[in-house]
Amino acid sequence: MKRRAFLTGAATAGVAAAAASTLAKPAIAQGKRELKMVTTWPKNFPGLGTGAQRAADRITAATEGRITVKVYAAGELVPPFESFDAVSSGTADCMHAAAYYWQGKSKGFNFFTAVPMGLLQPEMDAWIQFGGGQELWDELGAKFNLKPLPCGNTGVQMGGWFRKEIKSVEDFKGLKFRMPGAGGEVLRKLGAAVVALPGGEIFPALQSGAIDATEWVGPWNDMAFGFYRVAKFYYWPGYHEPGSMLECTWNKGVWDSFSKADQGLITDCCLAENNAMMAEFNARNGDSLKQLIEQHGVQLREFSDEIYKAFAKASEEVLGEMATESDLVDRIYNSFLDARDKSMSWTRLANQGYANKREAAMS
Amino acid sequence: MKRRAFLTGAATAGVAAAAASTLAKPAIAQGKRELKMVTTWPKNFPGLGTGAQRAADRITAATEGRITVKVYAAGELVPPFESFDAVSSGTADCMHAAAYYWQGKSKGFNFFTAVPMGLLQPEMDAWIQFGGGQELWDELGAKFNLKPLPCGNTGVQMGGWFRKEIKSVEDFKGLKFRMPGAGGEVLRKLGAAVVALPGGEIFPALQSGAIDATEWVGPWNDMAFGFYRVAKFYYWPGYHEPGSMLECTWNKGVWDSFSKADQGLITDCCLAENNAMMAEFNARNGDSLKQLIEQHGVQLREFSDEIYKAFAKASEEVLGEMATESDLVDRIYNSFLDARDKSMSWTRLANQGYANKREAAMS
Repeated sequence: MKRRAFLTGAATAGVAAAAASTLAKPAIAQGKRELKMVTTWPKNFPGLGTGAQRAADRITAATEGRITVKVYAAGELVPPFESFDAVSSGTADCMHAAAYYWQGKSKGFNFFTAVPMGLLQPEMDAWIQFGGGQELWDELGAKFNLKPLPCGNTGVQMGGWFRKEIKSVEDFKGLKFRMPGAGGEVLRKLGAAVVALPGGEIFPALQSGAIDATEWVGPWNDMAFGFYRVAKFYYWPGYHEPGSMLECTWNKGVWDSFSKADQGLITDCCLAENNAMMAEFNARNGDSLKQLIEQHGVQLREFSDEIYKAFAKASEEVLGEMATESDLVDRIYNSFLDARDKSMSWTRLANQGYANKREAAMS
Repeated sequence: MKRRAFLTGAATAGVAAAAASTLAKPAIAQGKRELKMVTTWPKNFPGLGTGAQRAADRITAATEGRITVKVYAAGELVPPFESFDAVSSGTADCMHAAAYYWQGKSKGFNFFTAVPMGLLQPEMDAWIQFGGGQELWDELGAKFNLKPLPCGNTGVQMGGWFRKEIKSVEDFKGLKFRMPGAGGEVLRKLGAAVVALPGGEIFPALQSGAIDATEWVGPWNDMAFGFYRVAKFYYWPGYHEPGSMLECTWNKGVWDSFSKADQGLITDCCLAENNAMMAEFNARNGDSLKQLIEQHGVQLREFSDEIYKAFAKASEEVLGEMATESDLVDRIYNSFLDARDKSMSWTRLANQGYANKREAAMS
């Protein structure tokens, strides 16, 4: 698997397969490698697709094309949800995706994107980079011949677009809500009729009343879909994805074939994009939120504390269920719980505490 | 100036000065450059010093030493507050520092670290990277032959250590408070006797009662200084530095001598550290806060809304005064105000909104 992965990459670049790690370093250094990055996003999809492209371009530019990373949009090389298998087997060299798409392989992957009632982006970075998260993710990835790296974040997602107001937990009973993954499981526990729909089918379903509500991402992405034209109420904050981290995950054979220097360079490029994508989402969400309210008359609604308590209770059940999968997932779950405890204490005094005081003082 | 800067770097690396940009590219690519990074931090000072070292190491490692960045702690090559002049003149190639140390050169530099009642780290990144901040910083830096890059963040700083409780704005009258910079100016407007003391002199001054209170950074750095042994009350949240961004700033001649590829690589390394240092501060602050409370009996106190309103009013005055310096600083100020407006609207629904709901739902 490893060898095949490497050969694929080398052959694509038009370099003899002999340029393998058995040769002297200078030969590799002078050789060019063209590597394939598959993604789960449409071409240049704002934020996610553009971020994937930017991550690839950072690597290509920093190496002056010695390592050229070519981006394939969803479906161009393989269907989006086959990205995992494509990278694992070496058909592609790396992917830009969201780890929770792979929860069919292991529930543990959920924790490396976002889980309901989970971590904010600054908390996630703290856990992954300085709280043992990366080591656990590496251990899980290695089981599938993968080496994962953090590479972007959407930040807090909005609670969703609703055709009618949600005033109590009772209002979720029978509500036809489009939400994938673990967030959807939480809603199901509250009695909602959860449906999964691909992006392109959401708008007509919401317009016709085939669904009553949908979540998507946040103001920037949501505005582009025009949901405000068919659902009046925009709820905040989303409990389901409080800081969705994206991944740039490598075929482990390809990763191991890189020199230590190139592994460092690629890690730096991915962390740079981890920072930049979050900055872009925050900047564009701020701009788009203003437009949605001022130009499109969108009505913001805050989930009540009672509803949030129900979200929290159901979320704890869903997370606990994930942990039963294996010893490794249980260790991931417990590391996550410990990180969340400590994060919550510090966030309360820091980002949260300051934001609350600033708002009160300046309003 | 530019030429001297380049020669300094090249000579240090033991490479003939002839390896200048007039030669063909391959010669530069094969040549090694050893560059000097001066810093305003003690050697390996936790968070700031270690972050500077890590940023330098990222560049050295990613280039396999082709560009070797050697870090000089405060005072090793030049005194810490001469770093600006050293890099501007080319005595050093770059510095890791906090831009607000250079407010004697221009008040505008304050906005590129942190200002009272300013931006949280995610908001700062949004402004710098996608809201026009970097362009304004570049314009200000260029006036001093500098090219600045973001390179780390401490996050929200704590409000400080107090020997007695602060229950109203009146309690600041005559209070001997150690706080540098614009934060100190705000306190002065509230009637405090603001003093400036270097790090090493704070503890004895607080112990003897020569000062009544001090701010430093946050739980991680503060615990190391042992302030909890002589001041009982630890106030949150700090209004004075809500997300202090650090800089890796280059002599412009040195920067312009880099290839586009190397400029990209260095930017990626600095953004990677921008992300990693924040992650480290958040992780360690979470750990240290727990220790301060559980093992050292520190008493947390929250500034009242009334006090925060006074901070906010005085802060607006201080910022407005900065803006009068020049047309450029006025443009920086207005760009900052616009970024803060939009950030506050989005943060309210996102990081702040979720953190509040999560806390209420899980407590």
